[in-house]
Amino acid sequence: MGALSCRHVLSMSDLSVDDIDLVLETATPFKEVNERAIKKTPTLRGLTVVNFFLEASTRTRTSFEIAAKRLSADAINFGGSASATAKGESLVDTAQTLDAMNCDLVVIRHRYAGSPFILTQNMRAHVINGGDGKHQHPTQALLDLYTIRERFGAVKGLRVGVVGDIAHSRVCGSLVWGLTALGAQVVLVAPPTLLPACPKLLACPATPGEPETAPVTVSSRLDDVLPELDVVYMLRIQMERIEQAPFPSLREYAQLFGINRRRLAAMKPEAIIMHPGPVNRGVELTSDAVDTARNLLLYQVNAGVAVRMALMYLLLGGEDDGFAS
Amino acid sequence: MGALSCRHVLSMSDLSVDDIDLVLETATPFKEVNERAIKKTPTLRGLTVVNFFLEASTRTRTSFEIAAKRLSADAINFGGSASATAKGESLVDTAQTLDAMNCDLVVIRHRYAGSPFILTQNMRAHVINGGDGKHQHPTQALLDLYTIRERFGAVKGLRVGVVGDIAHSRVCGSLVWGLTALGAQVVLVAPPTLLPACPKLLACPATPGEPETAPVTVSSRLDDVLPELDVVYMLRIQMERIEQAPFPSLREYAQLFGINRRRLAAMKPEAIIMHPGPVNRGVELTSDAVDTARNLLLYQVNAGVAVRMALMYLLLGGEDDGFAS
Amino acid sequence: MGALSCRHVLSMSDLSVDDIDLVLETATPFKEVNERAIKKTPTLRGLTVVNFFLEASTRTRTSFEIAAKRLSADAINFGGSASATAKGESLVDTAQTLDAMNCDLVVIRHRYAGSPFILTQNMRAHVINGGDGKHQHPTQALLDLYTIRERFGAVKGLRVGVVGDIAHSRVCGSLVWGLTALGAQVVLVAPPTLLPACPKLLACPATPGEPETAPVTVSSRLDDVLPELDVVYMLRIQMERIEQAPFPSLREYAQLFGINRRRLAAMKPEAIIMHPGPVNRGVELTSDAVDTARNLLLYQVNAGVAVRMALMYLLLGGEDDGFAS
Repeated sequence: MGALSCRHVLSMSDLSVDDIDLVLETATPFKEVNERAIKKTPTLRGLTVVNFFLEASTRTRTSFEIAAKRLSADAINFGGSASATAKGESLVDTAQTLDAMNCDLVVIRHRYAGSPFILTQNMRAHVINGGDGKHQHPTQALLDLYTIRERFGAVKGLRVGVVGDIAHSRVCGSLVWGLTALGAQVVLVAPPTLLPACPKLLACPATPGEPETAPVTVSSRLDDVLPELDVVYMLRIQMERIEQAPFPSLREYAQLFGINRRRLAAMKPEAIIMHPGPVNRGVELTSDAVDTARNLLLYQVNAGVAVRMALMYLLLGGEDDGFAS
Repeated sequence: MGALSCRHVLSMSDLSVDDIDLVLETATPFKEVNERAIKKTPTLRGLTVVNFFLEASTRTRTSFEIAAKRLSADAINFGGSASATAKGESLVDTAQTLDAMNCDLVVIRHRYAGSPFILTQNMRAHVINGGDGKHQHPTQALLDLYTIRERFGAVKGLRVGVVGDIAHSRVCGSLVWGLTALGAQVVLVAPPTLLPACPKLLACPATPGEPETAPVTVSSRLDDVLPELDVVYMLRIQMERIEQAPFPSLREYAQLFGINRRRLAAMKPEAIIMHPGPVNRGVELTSDAVDTARNLLLYQVNAGVAVRMALMYLLLGGEDDGFAS
Repeated sequence: MGALSCRHVLSMSDLSVDDIDLVLETATPFKEVNERAIKKTPTLRGLTVVNFFLEASTRTRTSFEIAAKRLSADAINFGGSASATAKGESLVDTAQTLDAMNCDLVVIRHRYAGSPFILTQNMRAHVINGGDGKHQHPTQALLDLYTIRERFGAVKGLRVGVVGDIAHSRVCGSLVWGLTALGAQVVLVAPPTLLPACPKLLACPATPGEPETAPVTVSSRLDDVLPELDVVYMLRIQMERIEQAPFPSLREYAQLFGINRRRLAAMKPEAIIMHPGPVNRGVELTSDAVDTARNLLLYQVNAGVAVRMALMYLLLGGEDDGFAS
């Protein structure tokens, strides 16, 4: 088994296509571990993994915590409102403190883009970005790619629509890079107020000498593009952002950009729906759409633990561990 | 060793008399484990136990967390104010998410009655109700029954007074069922405003063909019934409910329904006091009463860890583990 | 290897000079464990360590939690705003409850001086004071002594300046006792409003028949004493206390009592700076001073985990474990 080309995973752009392949392939045996009665490998025994979450997030933190514990690491939850950051401690100081405690890996979620980078400059530990501001959320993209590949066999050539608040979504930032790196075609679907000025900047650029990467296009009319999509990726509407009025009403948004029974019928027979969760039922998806077999949200969650185990293993574990051989 | 007849424990009515006996018997070797220097069994190694607590409760959560860890499970605390529920995520979504992460057991505490049932309908994991609204708190009843049986040898035939806010107490709901299932006679003692309209509904009904179960009666005069009680079970006054003024004052309540030095003297010599904790000193019990050897509160707490270990073991563990043989 | 003369560590005065030596010597092999890839010893397997923190403190709690987990103990975080204390539960009840759950060690941080003592009177578990009000913070002093000894080989004969809010500092209370017990000379440097009326009371008294311990003197002029100091220990200014106006302004404080480039130049060549962290940059230390090699803050943090492992091991572990031999 190979090794990653990077020490940290802050952004999908840290990962080469080979790296992405390696993570996804490594996730499969961990997914099998997670289906066993005894979901435990000794891989990271004696290593200290810190979940440094400064934004409310039970799902993602729990996914990382379960991943770390199933690998036998010592998992520490650090942060929250009770943390030193409330006393005005800087990120630099926190990084140096955790480093002095000989932590091996820090997973950070922070409302400011670039926070994970500050950690890497101030500690020896490996860093995984668990979501930073509107910037990146690479493990979400990796689990999404895993889920797509599991369903379709490959990502290359698929047409993927990413629907919703493109402009502010860190999920979208990571996902579009990953999709284009693996050769999917992406169409970003949103009200004009939520579309980026230059969508191509979200894509993974072509390697020099290689053919142009798959294009990223935009649309403000979901119904126009829906019938051709293999994957309909619905971004979550951040309710806390509604007050900025990027669109007239939730009701209008749901009518124009939500998946409902009519749109389900307009999709290709084998097309799938994805969502980073949790769904606002009745907004991004009606309950009809949530409950259909097309909706792979729970496959995504399931892949999430395995992909995070794979990433921790590849960053921290020995190459010749052979835990799952 | 046998197996429980149920997959989940949401209510005492999920448990047959044989189930209750099995839990109580299984708790005894775990109680011995807890007295050892090395309080650890490998029973649930590699299993994931989630404490999903949405109401403030350090005692009960800690009891479950210690129980899970002493059984070598991976214990995850999920919930609290930082949780996705604050983002409006539904219980259904949470259940499905935890299920997709391959959790094996969820202990839930929630302010709405019936919440644990929603989990069972949306996940494969086993569910234990850690207290839901004013409905049930079955592990409290099990540890209470353990404590009573440890002291008296059996529950059958004992006269138990349950004193306090009967109408709103989930502890009472579970306890009266358990007591009557095992053949105790119960008298509910409270101000008329806090007595249920139909006390018999709290009791475990007789199996068809069997003789009538022990009666549940009511009284609003503690002094009338106290001299005949073997067990005086004092429910906690929820201070947050006082504003609804179910009785004129705490002082009056304490005088009419609290255990003080005078009432201690009126009790049978071998009668015991129980309380789910934490005690409001000077309300349910004066400090005299708290500090007397009659007060078995700490035996209850001690039994709590063992009973929860037993329940987790019976729900999740192999039948032929023989950990404590 | 010997044993400590005390069951609990509430105050530096609980520890004899031999005890202090034993803790510091025991910490060295644990420091080596912490530098290994696999930072784990089976020493406290099956023991339950409770972090009972009722004041916001991520650093200290995390240090104790990591220490407990690296020793293989079951570590439980108990407390915070969600705790039973919010329901009005008394410290006595909490102690008795944790005791009934067979906890082996409780680390307590509490805003009231003397709280750890209340625990010791109500439980069988060992108690470590993780900081109580303005009273004591003995593990901080132990890690400070470790750091000083590591740098200078011994504490005896060193001149140590402790600078800042002497009057309200629990760090200072523990440190001065420890320094004088090991034979350092201490000068307390602060605005007159923050100096104690009777500084000698902070010192460890001489053993009867032994020569007088090292003196504790005071000064309100840092520049006068700085050139002779081997250790400049900067106490943290508690921003929450500024409103009580113990000095005219932060700016004036920094000018009179902060370490800046000029004062760095005035220090002895081999003199070191210490700080309990987190630093208020620009107040106690300018960024120049933080980033200089003289500043041993991170060595202190690093020693902290090892010293806490040593203390837990000595309080709880077998004497003949030989984990690191």
